[in-house]
Amino acid sequence: MTDKKFVYFFGDNQTEGSNKMKHLLGGKGANLAEMANLGVPVPPGFTISTEACVLYMKNNDYPEGMWDEIDKNIDKLEKSTGKKFGDPENPLLSSVRSGAPISMPGMMDTVLNLGLNDETVRGLAKRTDNEWFAYDSYRRFIMMFSDVVLGIDTNEFENLIQQKKDELGVTEDTELDTNTMKDLVEEFKSVYKEKTGSDFPQEIKQQLKMAINAVFNSWNNERAKKYRQLNDISDELGTAVNVQAMVFGNMGETSGTGVAFTRNPATGEKEFYGEYLTNAQGEDVVAGIRTPKSIQALKENMPDVYKQLDDITQKLEQHYKDMQDIEFTIEKGKLYMLQTRNAKRTAAAALKVAVDMVYENLINKKEAVMRLKPSQIDQVLHPMIDPDSELELLSSGLAASPGAAVGKVVFSAEHAEEMAQNNEDVILVRTETSPEDIGGMHAAKGVLTVRGGMTSHAAVVARGMGKPCVCGCDGISIDMNKGVFTAKGYSINEGECISIDGSEGKIYMGEAELKMPNVSGELETMLQWADEIRSLNVRTNADTPEDAKLARDFGAEGIGLCRTEHMFFGEERIPVVREMIMADNKEDREKALQKLQPMQKDDFLDIFRAMDGYPITIRLLDPPLHEFLPNYEDLIEKIKKLESEGGKQEEIKRVNDLLRNVDTLKETNPMLGHRGCRLGITYPEIYEMQIKAIIEAACELSSEGTNVIPEIMIPLVSNEKELDFVKKTVTDTAESVMNEKGTNIDYLCGTMIELPRAALTADKIAKGAEFFSFGTNDLTQTTFGYSRDDAGKFLPLYIDKGILESDPFAVLDQEGVGELMKIGIDKGRSSRPDIKMGICGEHGGDPESISFSYEAGLNYVSCSPYRVPIARLASAQAVLKEENQN
Amino acid sequence: MTDKKFVYFFGDNQTEGSNKMKHLLGGKGANLAEMANLGVPVPPGFTISTEACVLYMKNNDYPEGMWDEIDKNIDKLEKSTGKKFGDPENPLLSSVRSGAPISMPGMMDTVLNLGLNDETVRGLAKRTDNEWFAYDSYRRFIMMFSDVVLGIDTNEFENLIQQKKDELGVTEDTELDTNTMKDLVEEFKSVYKEKTGSDFPQEIKQQLKMAINAVFNSWNNERAKKYRQLNDISDELGTAVNVQAMVFGNMGETSGTGVAFTRNPATGEKEFYGEYLTNAQGEDVVAGIRTPKSIQALKENMPDVYKQLDDITQKLEQHYKDMQDIEFTIEKGKLYMLQTRNAKRTAAAALKVAVDMVYENLINKKEAVMRLKPSQIDQVLHPMIDPDSELELLSSGLAASPGAAVGKVVFSAEHAEEMAQNNEDVILVRTETSPEDIGGMHAAKGVLTVRGGMTSHAAVVARGMGKPCVCGCDGISIDMNKGVFTAKGYSINEGECISIDGSEGKIYMGEAELKMPNVSGELETMLQWADEIRSLNVRTNADTPEDAKLARDFGAEGIGLCRTEHMFFGEERIPVVREMIMADNKEDREKALQKLQPMQKDDFLDIFRAMDGYPITIRLLDPPLHEFLPNYEDLIEKIKKLESEGGKQEEIKRVNDLLRNVDTLKETNPMLGHRGCRLGITYPEIYEMQIKAIIEAACELSSEGTNVIPEIMIPLVSNEKELDFVKKTVTDTAESVMNEKGTNIDYLCGTMIELPRAALTADKIAKGAEFFSFGTNDLTQTTFGYSRDDAGKFLPLYIDKGILESDPFAVLDQEGVGELMKIGIDKGRSSRPDIKMGICGEHGGDPESISFSYEAGLNYVSCSPYRVPIARLASAQAVLKEENQN
Repeated sequence: MTDKKFVYFFGDNQTEGSNKMKHLLGGKGANLAEMANLGVPVPPGFTISTEACVLYMKNNDYPEGMWDEIDKNIDKLEKSTGKKFGDPENPLLSSVRSGAPISMPGMMDTVLNLGLNDETVRGLAKRTDNEWFAYDSYRRFIMMFSDVVLGIDTNEFENLIQQKKDELGVTEDTELDTNTMKDLVEEFKSVYKEKTGSDFPQEIKQQLKMAINAVFNSWNNERAKKYRQLNDISDELGTAVNVQAMVFGNMGETSGTGVAFTRNPATGEKEFYGEYLTNAQGEDVVAGIRTPKSIQALKENMPDVYKQLDDITQKLEQHYKDMQDIEFTIEKGKLYMLQTRNAKRTAAAALKVAVDMVYENLINKKEAVMRLKPSQIDQVLHPMIDPDSELELLSSGLAASPGAAVGKVVFSAEHAEEMAQNNEDVILVRTETSPEDIGGMHAAKGVLTVRGGMTSHAAVVARGMGKPCVCGCDGISIDMNKGVFTAKGYSINEGECISIDGSEGKIYMGEAELKMPNVSGELETMLQWADEIRSLNVRTNADTPEDAKLARDFGAEGIGLCRTEHMFFGEERIPVVREMIMADNKEDREKALQKLQPMQKDDFLDIFRAMDGYPITIRLLDPPLHEFLPNYEDLIEKIKKLESEGGKQEEIKRVNDLLRNVDTLKETNPMLGHRGCRLGITYPEIYEMQIKAIIEAACELSSEGTNVIPEIMIPLVSNEKELDFVKKTVTDTAESVMNEKGTNIDYLCGTMIELPRAALTADKIAKGAEFFSFGTNDLTQTTFGYSRDDAGKFLPLYIDKGILESDPFAVLDQEGVGELMKIGIDKGRSSRPDIKMGICGEHGGDPESISFSYEAGLNYVSCSPYRVPIARLASAQAVLKEENQN
Repeated sequence: MTDKKFVYFFGDNQTEGSNKMKHLLGGKGANLAEMANLGVPVPPGFTISTEACVLYMKNNDYPEGMWDEIDKNIDKLEKSTGKKFGDPENPLLSSVRSGAPISMPGMMDTVLNLGLNDETVRGLAKRTDNEWFAYDSYRRFIMMFSDVVLGIDTNEFENLIQQKKDELGVTEDTELDTNTMKDLVEEFKSVYKEKTGSDFPQEIKQQLKMAINAVFNSWNNERAKKYRQLNDISDELGTAVNVQAMVFGNMGETSGTGVAFTRNPATGEKEFYGEYLTNAQGEDVVAGIRTPKSIQALKENMPDVYKQLDDITQKLEQHYKDMQDIEFTIEKGKLYMLQTRNAKRTAAAALKVAVDMVYENLINKKEAVMRLKPSQIDQVLHPMIDPDSELELLSSGLAASPGAAVGKVVFSAEHAEEMAQNNEDVILVRTETSPEDIGGMHAAKGVLTVRGGMTSHAAVVARGMGKPCVCGCDGISIDMNKGVFTAKGYSINEGECISIDGSEGKIYMGEAELKMPNVSGELETMLQWADEIRSLNVRTNADTPEDAKLARDFGAEGIGLCRTEHMFFGEERIPVVREMIMADNKEDREKALQKLQPMQKDDFLDIFRAMDGYPITIRLLDPPLHEFLPNYEDLIEKIKKLESEGGKQEEIKRVNDLLRNVDTLKETNPMLGHRGCRLGITYPEIYEMQIKAIIEAACELSSEGTNVIPEIMIPLVSNEKELDFVKKTVTDTAESVMNEKGTNIDYLCGTMIELPRAALTADKIAKGAEFFSFGTNDLTQTTFGYSRDDAGKFLPLYIDKGILESDPFAVLDQEGVGELMKIGIDKGRSSRPDIKMGICGEHGGDPESISFSYEAGLNYVSCSPYRVPIARLASAQAVLKEENQN
């Protein structure tokens, strides 16, 4: 015997746990205990701890003493309810549910009505005076037990029910009569025997043992593992098991079961919101098989129960200081609370609830800032269908998850995943979704289901993922075999495009134009609170005045990366750029550059104006020159075509010249090739042109009163001498332009740190650099030796096998790349303590990476315009996390 | 006035300097002082220190007090010689020579006969009773002064001499009469006036000032800078200036000048060896214009002088404990020593002299080991022309620098450099070489000159560079305009191939077969001494039994890198390899692998036998699979051809299939692509096959009594989980093979550290790795972000501009790559203190990098077979350098 306690009782004034014990009792168990402590009516029961589960998984055996404790708690439960397991007169029925420390909706297995056998079913019938109910419960129990504990396909049972319905010409289960139910019980037991070779267990403790065992094992089933992977939940937590006395929502019209929220989980509006079904068990609501009624209907049907429920939920929200998601059951007019937890909500709701709760004095600003996941901002900023677009409406359904999406129709999760891997946008269309569909939902741009309500699997999961979703859209019907769905007389084949609007619950034919919403009031407020807290500056990566303007509206405090090469690609520019590249000598090259210079200057004029008063980091030309030339294979084709069509000799010669240049400039590994400052050293005239354009534009605007703060950035430095070389070009050129213009511009000259050697020799480089910008995209490529363009061949497998936790191009690799950054930061500051440092890779918009950037001591992050609000929030949260740790 | 002393007198028992003061007096000045101290007859003079030069360069002005000191030393010199500058009766003439702390032969400028003017020339004539001599000296002085001090082209003067010779129908300068010399003096002065606008300076102190100035400035001329760059000499050293009373070798038949060595500088034989010219000044010997006599002729002509010279040189060698290279002048039968220095020598000579001197008790073994540059071993191991080859002998000349070379004829240094950059082997063919040709000599495989002796510029420089060289080959004549040379009636155009044998002094038509010499007795001895000293193990990179055997003969103590992919390229293997690559599924892939396995096993059997008793590090498949497929463009061509020629449909389909595979496997950056352990993780069956082959071969040989020590190496690890994954394949497969064979093999399993992230996380990786091998080739690529295949586009410019000191693929970059290695070593040892570590990049054979590897604490280096002896010596020197520092 060990001293460990594995089982905790709740209810009936004997509660042993509390909300503080989530890790041990799981979310559900802890909340049941907490509710019991608060005096909320909860059916009594006990929780087997996660610790028991972890030990079970580790040793492949139950921890010593666990079953003794369970026996003692069964005694307690029997005393508390006045019923007994297996008692033919007054049988105790229980539910057995999983409950992990972190909520995993629909992921884990549950058994209801445990305690029924051929004898107790009769006792239950007698006791409740409702034979139909007793046999309905028994057949449900056999089916769930068979499914969950023994993995027997539920269709085996569903088909038998359907047969009966067909025979009797009815559509609802509730329309089946008692004898039919009895027949079904017998038939179900036969299925069980046929599939397992044994009789359905009549011994209640054996039922319980098998069920507990199944819940423990469900922790490691495929869909649970997949969910944890997608949601970054540790495999080591384990699940608790809650054994709880059953109460019945399926005991007639004064019974029912429902799910409710203290506020609207889609919008955050403060309104009591929910759904319920009369004469039903909880699973019926969640599964989305019957479409439930609004909770408002309960107010009319059972006003007292409604009042009690409303009071309880208010009390729970006040207690937990967060919006609650509750499950309740009404057994013959008596209300029981089965669960309360912090509600899942849309991003818009999360935002509104957090802001409202500050105004309601429930939480403070800092708490509010921690309530919104940075990634949720992405969802608030989700695209909408352009209101002006004139598309054919196919059907309407529930607005289950906000935002709009456009994509090709697919009917299976696997297909969705395949097509997404080929970079195709898809909409997953299903009758209803199940946990097996998670991967496909993740891959799809949006989800559409025929059945199910706002709390159906599809709706809950899509909201969590921030995907647009329309549910319960029964105006459409799917023919899987033919690969087509029909609506309003139209047939939409797999592969055809549709548009869905998850905020409005509408389905349209064809491709809609999508539009971004404005940043609304609550977001503004939330981000202002974040701004008060954060110390990291947030800049944007922008190459156009439009992006600069957009980012500024989103709160960007400057540009962290302005890529000048993007300016080379304009239609009237690319011929001049090619002329420059193909020049045989410096003179011809300079001629072409002279043509480019006024164009570049115009670009800078517009961007400087858009960022008036904020610093702009301009990166000098970075990509290898061959990127500006056409593709080799295309040129070969073109020549072939010209030759076969008898094209002009002149034209053929021109294309051949181009081909020769493309061939000369071709590189084996362009990522590691002749680019960045290497270009600026071999062809200083290119950088000279760019610097001239920058400084001329700055001088001109400065005399007009615009506050221009240019920061000239030299890319791909691996050696302080490269920096010194190019910096001389910068200072000489700038000096001469400023003299000519008679204006002085305060500009900085700095460098990207995007190669391991740059980080390792940052002390030397910092002597010449006034700022560092960590280019974590390239730094990730070289640190790992991964080509971003090629890593797709093995990265998915790496993540699948757990070799990598996440894609290092999306989430900064703190152990390797981050280590180099720390070396670079320390060495850089050692020789220039006041050096300004930032990050401008994709990671600049990733919350985890922003947190790292803050801890590592950077001054700013820079990210794409749409991620600026995310970065503002994430930067504030980084400060708060640090405060909370100290 | 400062307290600094800038000028040091030597000779006439008033010598102020010594050999210990090389840094201050330069090599020549220090040795002149040392000789004077030893009582050797040296014309008196004084040395202006390098410090004065450095200050002059820094401040662009002469240091305060320098000229006063010079004046005082002129007084001393006048007293010592009894002559006076500008004295019309008894004029003092002096030489002004440069002399840097490190010898830079022919690099620096020299002025002779300074002190002559229109008046003193008559005094000299009277005093020496030799008017011809006086005017010959004057015209020489004007010409050298004009050239060195004012940069006037010597051809301006040479043409005038040639005119006179043509007029008089003579060929030698000595045949011109006195009046002609007088005329030449006047004409030379006119040239001077014409080019400079001033009269030739008549004021002697002005001559001296201008000459000293010119020597100082010559430190920064282009050829001196280039020489320093090629020889890794700091630009900060500066040169000293030696002002020395002239003695005259051109005063008739009892006068002369020569150069001699205490041993044979080509072979190291202990024999008095040298050349001299009668009635000549020193520059005549060095310039190679007249072909000199052997020093043995002096024994007959002036036996007393010869005896005195022989005694002095013996004394000098005993004193310096090294082979001496001396310059002497005989003025009317009186011997003067002008210079002594440690002699430049061929590698073979360096080896023999060092070993002999140990046996002569002049030096000890450690000193001997330090006497040979590791790179010189390369030269001892230089290729020879296969004695069995039957090539047409074109001509013979002096065997100026050993070894043989084959290449295309080029007639200019620039052209040689151009062609070498295109990877063409060239032989530089010149009438004579000058310091301007240095770059071209460096680029050429061998050098051939028409004129000049064993101490000519071409010979000295080629020996220094370890290039084969044939000098004084007057059987050939060059027509630069036509781009052709003729010999024995044959015409050889620029671009045609010849072969030269610098050990025998022979020139052959066409391409000779080259052969490697055996490692001879002295080298064996030297390397055994090195082995006694060194602690680093030396292994080889070898993929074939032949290479393994060769390396073992060279002293390799195992294989540090056996690349298994090289075994995939065999003619009968590549189709099977392609079958494996093109397999659509694992089953087909395994079928192909089963065919490959016996072949791989055979390879290992042979290599294991060749390395019996030594460890062999076998790297599992590393390159991306597309490397085994044909080129994309070639396949397109092939299909075109097949189609136009009506080839079989079957064959067209086959090639099209291949093409599709090539296209699928194509990568943007293959260096950073799907290769190394990434392959082993996506296709574990490939590694399984290889491991099976290794362990089966090991088991079979082990039972036969061969001592097999396999070390299985996993490439391209960036993450400990990759290693763990592949290691499981290794141990599972090995276990199963050993069980099957009933044999146990002690094998190790380790990894390459060739990515920055591997070094940064080496502590975690070392937990699973029993050894590390630093793959510095790839590590250099990723640390710098340089693609080795593409860096040619900017690396030469980088080295030229001083951005890089050397090619980081040849010499390890200690600051960046080395820093990562140190991190890797420290972290690796922190979690596995006894981990074995080595280096297996190209750097494993580079002496400087070996020295770094020793200091960084590696256990072994691994290099190509021919570099094994170099590595043995370099490893010993690393130990001795450390001892000398402590």
